[in-house]
Amino acid sequence: MHKTCDVMMEKNILEENSKLARKNAELFKDHNVRAFNILGAIGSGKTTVIEKMAEGMADTRVGAIAGDLSGKDDYIRFKNRGIPAVAVNTGKDCHLDAHYVSHALEKLPLDDMDILFIENVGNLICPVDFPLGTEMSVVIISVTEGDDMIRKHPLIFAQSEISVLNKVDLAEIMEVDIGVIESDFNKINPHGKLIKTDARKGKGLEELSRMLKIN
Amino acid sequence: MHKTCDVMMEKNILEENSKLARKNAELFKDHNVRAFNILGAIGSGKTTVIEKMAEGMADTRVGAIAGDLSGKDDYIRFKNRGIPAVAVNTGKDCHLDAHYVSHALEKLPLDDMDILFIENVGNLICPVDFPLGTEMSVVIISVTEGDDMIRKHPLIFAQSEISVLNKVDLAEIMEVDIGVIESDFNKINPHGKLIKTDARKGKGLEELSRMLKIN
Repeated sequence: MHKTCDVMMEKNILEENSKLARKNAELFKDHNVRAFNILGAIGSGKTTVIEKMAEGMADTRVGAIAGDLSGKDDYIRFKNRGIPAVAVNTGKDCHLDAHYVSHALEKLPLDDMDILFIENVGNLICPVDFPLGTEMSVVIISVTEGDDMIRKHPLIFAQSEISVLNKVDLAEIMEVDIGVIESDFNKINPHGKLIKTDARKGKGLEELSRMLKIN
Repeated sequence: MHKTCDVMMEKNILEENSKLARKNAELFKDHNVRAFNILGAIGSGKTTVIEKMAEGMADTRVGAIAGDLSGKDDYIRFKNRGIPAVAVNTGKDCHLDAHYVSHALEKLPLDDMDILFIENVGNLICPVDFPLGTEMSVVIISVTEGDDMIRKHPLIFAQSEISVLNKVDLAEIMEVDIGVIESDFNKINPHGKLIKTDARKGKGLEELSRMLKIN
């Protein structure tokens, strides 16, 4: 294999993604939709955070894209709550990209929407390199993943505008020290904010909404 | 970009990996080392399972490779228990490959080892395509990730010889139905076995050792 092939391909993939991300951003602007890229570990509570945020927004019309390798679980959860949604199954791809999102947008009623939550594939690694055209990225982890998550995946916490630590109610039973997580976060993203939530009970979601300038 | 470049590259990467995986397998055989690829979601308890299995093996000499994007947390945990270990930091790569492992093996005392646990990067997606030359793959998830994990990532559960559901003690507080997880697993891997563990308390690890034919 020629090395040039490798380098050329990666460069082209990322350039192509950036171009499509800019197109998505224009589309959001044209339709007055504010879009958020919701990233995070598998099972950290991304879907629940979105559901509960939507529940708290009486006068704001919310839509969602549910990204997963396989299945429609999250899509069905959104639909059951009356949230217009599209399921994107990536097969073996470990992240959404701007191309997947552009096709999902064709199926969403953007004119009837104020906020669009794009739930990325559950993964703290791959989605980092692929902007989708959103206004902000929000990364969600939970205490059940242990207190070394931030140290192990510094890049996504440095790059995301907002970081959320979910399931804080389980810290004691999981024997996880939230102070360690906060201290790691402050080293990696000294000007950022780590919002603590218990999404199932709605705790901390008002603060998150404020940070996203929703409501 | 030419499509041929894309296809050629993927094919070459996977072929090159298979070649190196075969070399690793030969090296294991030459040194009478049984190697296991330990896969699983972030925070599912891979390190704890390895630590506790090692603790239970009085007459078996265990070594470990700790794969992570960044940091030496798991490596330090192994060293603190007297387990010879090497840390592999992949930077942005979402999985180990046979090449990373071949270099780690240069630093391990293979002649003083019966079992080698290779803890892959925490991820249920990327590691699937990259065999490392091990005898078996063991995939570990935990109930804290929710009851839809298997449906969302069918491939890794279909391909791994052994699957483990960890932290079963937390099922009730997490409101997770283990029956759903078991039923999904049986559909995807009808001849496979899903071993239920609570690794922190050592529960279920004897059964796992039996399945791995350790002891």
